[in-house]
Amino acid sequence: MPALEVNPDLQKERNTATFDPQEFSIFWAGGVEKYKEKKALEKLFLEDPALMDKLPTSYMSHKELYEDSLRKACVIGEKIRKLRADGEDGVDTYAALLGGSLGAALLKEGNPMSLHYVMFVPTIMGQGTMEQQVEWLPKAWDCEIIGTYAQTELGHGTFLRGLETRADYDASTQEFVINTPTMTAYKWWPGGLGHTANYAVVVAQLYTKGEFRGLAPFIVQLRDMETHQPMPGIDIGDIGTKLSMKGVNNGYLGLKNVRVPLNHMLMKNQQVLPDGTYVAPKNSVLTYGTMMFVRCVLIRDTAHSLAKASTIATRYSAVRRQSPIDPKEPEPQIMDHTTQQLKVFPQISKAIVFKIAGDTIWNMYNVLSGELEQGNLERLPEMHALACCLKAICSADASAGVEICRLSCGGHGFMDCSNFPAIYGMTTAVCTYEGENTVMLLQTARYLVKVYGQALAGEKLVPTVAYINEAIKLKKFVNFDCTLESIVKAFQFVAANKTRVAYEQIEMRRRQGHSTEVAANLSGIFLTGAADLHGRAFLAQTAYTELTAISKQVSPALADVLKVVLELYLVDACLNRIGDFLRFIEFTDADVTKLEMRLESCLKRLRPNSVALVDSFDLHDRVLDSALGAYDGKVYDHIFESIKKNPLNKEPVNESFHKYLKPFMKAHL
Amino acid sequence: MPALEVNPDLQKERNTATFDPQEFSIFWAGGVEKYKEKKALEKLFLEDPALMDKLPTSYMSHKELYEDSLRKACVIGEKIRKLRADGEDGVDTYAALLGGSLGAALLKEGNPMSLHYVMFVPTIMGQGTMEQQVEWLPKAWDCEIIGTYAQTELGHGTFLRGLETRADYDASTQEFVINTPTMTAYKWWPGGLGHTANYAVVVAQLYTKGEFRGLAPFIVQLRDMETHQPMPGIDIGDIGTKLSMKGVNNGYLGLKNVRVPLNHMLMKNQQVLPDGTYVAPKNSVLTYGTMMFVRCVLIRDTAHSLAKASTIATRYSAVRRQSPIDPKEPEPQIMDHTTQQLKVFPQISKAIVFKIAGDTIWNMYNVLSGELEQGNLERLPEMHALACCLKAICSADASAGVEICRLSCGGHGFMDCSNFPAIYGMTTAVCTYEGENTVMLLQTARYLVKVYGQALAGEKLVPTVAYINEAIKLKKFVNFDCTLESIVKAFQFVAANKTRVAYEQIEMRRRQGHSTEVAANLSGIFLTGAADLHGRAFLAQTAYTELTAISKQVSPALADVLKVVLELYLVDACLNRIGDFLRFIEFTDADVTKLEMRLESCLKRLRPNSVALVDSFDLHDRVLDSALGAYDGKVYDHIFESIKKNPLNKEPVNESFHKYLKPFMKAHL
Repeated sequence: MPALEVNPDLQKERNTATFDPQEFSIFWAGGVEKYKEKKALEKLFLEDPALMDKLPTSYMSHKELYEDSLRKACVIGEKIRKLRADGEDGVDTYAALLGGSLGAALLKEGNPMSLHYVMFVPTIMGQGTMEQQVEWLPKAWDCEIIGTYAQTELGHGTFLRGLETRADYDASTQEFVINTPTMTAYKWWPGGLGHTANYAVVVAQLYTKGEFRGLAPFIVQLRDMETHQPMPGIDIGDIGTKLSMKGVNNGYLGLKNVRVPLNHMLMKNQQVLPDGTYVAPKNSVLTYGTMMFVRCVLIRDTAHSLAKASTIATRYSAVRRQSPIDPKEPEPQIMDHTTQQLKVFPQISKAIVFKIAGDTIWNMYNVLSGELEQGNLERLPEMHALACCLKAICSADASAGVEICRLSCGGHGFMDCSNFPAIYGMTTAVCTYEGENTVMLLQTARYLVKVYGQALAGEKLVPTVAYINEAIKLKKFVNFDCTLESIVKAFQFVAANKTRVAYEQIEMRRRQGHSTEVAANLSGIFLTGAADLHGRAFLAQTAYTELTAISKQVSPALADVLKVVLELYLVDACLNRIGDFLRFIEFTDADVTKLEMRLESCLKRLRPNSVALVDSFDLHDRVLDSALGAYDGKVYDHIFESIKKNPLNKEPVNESFHKYLKPFMKAHL
Repeated sequence: MPALEVNPDLQKERNTATFDPQEFSIFWAGGVEKYKEKKALEKLFLEDPALMDKLPTSYMSHKELYEDSLRKACVIGEKIRKLRADGEDGVDTYAALLGGSLGAALLKEGNPMSLHYVMFVPTIMGQGTMEQQVEWLPKAWDCEIIGTYAQTELGHGTFLRGLETRADYDASTQEFVINTPTMTAYKWWPGGLGHTANYAVVVAQLYTKGEFRGLAPFIVQLRDMETHQPMPGIDIGDIGTKLSMKGVNNGYLGLKNVRVPLNHMLMKNQQVLPDGTYVAPKNSVLTYGTMMFVRCVLIRDTAHSLAKASTIATRYSAVRRQSPIDPKEPEPQIMDHTTQQLKVFPQISKAIVFKIAGDTIWNMYNVLSGELEQGNLERLPEMHALACCLKAICSADASAGVEICRLSCGGHGFMDCSNFPAIYGMTTAVCTYEGENTVMLLQTARYLVKVYGQALAGEKLVPTVAYINEAIKLKKFVNFDCTLESIVKAFQFVAANKTRVAYEQIEMRRRQGHSTEVAANLSGIFLTGAADLHGRAFLAQTAYTELTAISKQVSPALADVLKVVLELYLVDACLNRIGDFLRFIEFTDADVTKLEMRLESCLKRLRPNSVALVDSFDLHDRVLDSALGAYDGKVYDHIFESIKKNPLNKEPVNESFHKYLKPFMKAHL
């Protein structure tokens, strides 16, 4: 870190920390090599004057924001071209530049060309034939065309079979005729679709020889290559302002008798022959793989959001002084208020645990991916169930955590210069996209109820649900002794019992004559509850296993801190679901009090290292982009800098005074 | 309601409702007279073309937004002048126009002149002497001057004694010299301070004869009456963009040797004589009264936020179809998914209960207010404790509820045209202003711990905490039978026990040698938990008492619906604190399952009347301002209308294509 003049309260925290933040930074980055790559990428992108904001985006109109976002997206695109030419691009680079870390520092309201890189190109790679890849990929990689991926419609999201856009094959011309027959069939939401992309992969219901064949992807040209005017039959534009991602240029798309040639249907998995004969795909599990990949990335993104928010809140809590604890003493750092620690520190622990869980499931995904390619589908349902509930839990908890951090900074957290509003907008979006959270939990629950039945029938379950076998054997959980091992085991026992109750609810309703589907719908409260606990049990187990293992590999000083992080995470997680624990495990009032005292003890023990710990997330000041959270802790100076950028303050008297206010004030004189 | 073409699914819901929404609308408005007044006010303000938005505010730059907000504020101000001249203004009118209901429809991002009406004028009325009132009030009421109220500073909010702004009396000129000696002393946040107000009440630390005298309020001229240029020594501007209220023109203010005459100090409660002699105030309880007044208003505002959000989500849930429950059936109204009901319907019940609690505490405040004027302070601490925790609970629950409603609308809830982002911004702000929520809970807790000690000593407590006497007598809660009476009693028992635990924690730490203050800080987790349950016990009791009473006064059809609302509220509230219930009351796993099944049953029973119930909140389409929630339910038409207003869509090709995108795409060709 650079040697800067630093707020003395913050410096004091750093001086008294008991471990070396850089040791954890390197772990956090994924090792020395990745740490160096990260620093190099930051240097390359964050120090480019073309990518610095003169005017914060919050002061721009939506139109200005889009125009500036596109400008920057082109600068970034040009740099990516160079990296690619030098062979220095890679999955991590794209993830950093287009996703939650560097990406948000460069384009706070999102990148209108993201979907080109993360959906358009990969879809052609994954679903195009060799010939199609040869035709389209060079143009796409070189950004001679900019594409997007158009699947969801105004009236249809989650339920893909409900999509209305249709492609009818016309064998006489060997073309597909694509239409959005109704208002609700309009494609809606794709990033960059509004005014940026000139191509899209459009997903439509395929009809050949008058028969319905299921969904298929088509490459459709949206705009003229020279003039960028919409092509005939294309009705296209921007869907408007949103809670966040205002620069993404999410668009709408109507198609009216748009004709595309036969070879514009991506045909790796399914084919249409020139005469209209349809050749069905062999299996569709590969799309599960892609969804899982995206959800694994999202879990890591939620960790990143929490890291940002907790860094800002922790540093501010060290600098801000308010409300004497003892009326005879001066105002303390607000970090000394137990209630403040209670808000902020659990978010630090969650950031770390979600990161570790993200890494763990990422590794599991890679193993699975290899198995899938060899035709081994055995662990797919298990992994799918896990990724679904973790995506839901981590995004919901991270969103709540960001807001807790914001609220912990009082009124100043409400200002855009804190960056909390933007971080929240980006984080809460994850609750909805790539599988709405409730839908995700229900998918996990469906799996859990199924395997619960298998366990009752005596089957031995796969690893991530094996705890259900144990719980059935155990019946009653005894000797809950508040050790960390015991909390992890108890989480699993509680999860198994939540699944049991959900299972029993469905069975009861089936006995009452409902179909399985109706019974499941009526049991929604129980099913989502079971899936929630399944994910939390996994998080508890993973936190315990991984942090214990990591602690053995690092310096004793860091190991001590990580032990407190683990204990804080587990005790807090347990207290957050204390109702479930008390429901299935014998606990006294006094036991709960003890746990609450233990939580307070964890907070107190983390306090001296809290600043060093967030420092070790190693978030660049431009990534934080927060007057409250900068490394130097000069909160009030940065706030003053921010007001100087406010266009309203460029003139002492706004013209509206003369136009409106003065006539109003003088009206009756 | 007007006869419009209505979405058939929504119309079907209305046709099959079992009660008359207007009956409830009249109750909701506060009786027939108030209902008529509300309609008249809506007509007067909402049908004025000068107050309609051509361009939604979300598309404007911050500067444009301020200018348009000021324009509208002047139009509203002129109308208020007329109402006042006709004797038709009143507390309710100001609350509606400047607060959460009509106000937000007219100025979605807040009114830069609000503080003039709600703080500047009332402060002069409350703290000015007769002469001062005669001098300032006519000018202020006629808006010949526009004022604001400047108390909080960049570095100081909650802890008033920490304010740094100081006023030194100079007897030689009979003037005060006001200074903000440091950066952190800058006044920060006052609405309208940036560029709108030309006067302010400035709160400063008073020094006379070289001695510190405590805080005092001063009338300070900020800007020239003719040119609006800042006065000498005044450094002033807008603090910048925020999560919401972007049109309020929150400002900053530095004062450098600003001199104001002796009679500009508001001297009703304390005086400075010409020679500098200081006359201290008799008592300061009256300021408690004002804070309580504001918090009572805020509790009602939270009900209004929930009413808006739940109306939008309920109507959308009736119109939107998605994801078959039975794969053989078409996609149902999403309202038929139990998990959707679970999100939306509890927010309807909370809107109703918070409204009733707001009315109840409002009535209690009015009684108290009379008592205070007669010098009877007996019930002040009790009422203060109650208002504090209810402000915190209702604002936190309403914020969470708004987000749950937004998320229940999937991606479309994320669009600004849903209006959820703006509603959330306005609602979550209440968590921070007028007493930060954690500070509020701690204030309540301090009272609870004190009275717990009194109860242990055998004292009989005042009504709102009398349940503590009972719980101490009872020791163990027996026969929890899940009746509504029993849930209410159990809430009180649990609340009493949370206070007991907090009390014991503080006592334990005192025995360990900590001062009471340090002991209280260390027990923060326990204290906030106790205050939370105290407020929830009051809400449960009030919901039960009031809704039962109301049910007896209305038609049997409406009474039946209100009974379901009450049951839903209580069962949901209980399940949300089930950990606390299980901790202090004997419950089995099966009991919890039964409660969860009862929740599901409440949802199912409310479903047929849910649309009629939100209709009966009688929220004008302009108040809702939501493509998803309009009365006619034509969701997709309204979304299409919204994209037509988007300035980006006014031209098929944005100029940024030629400037940035085309050169980028063609760079390597």
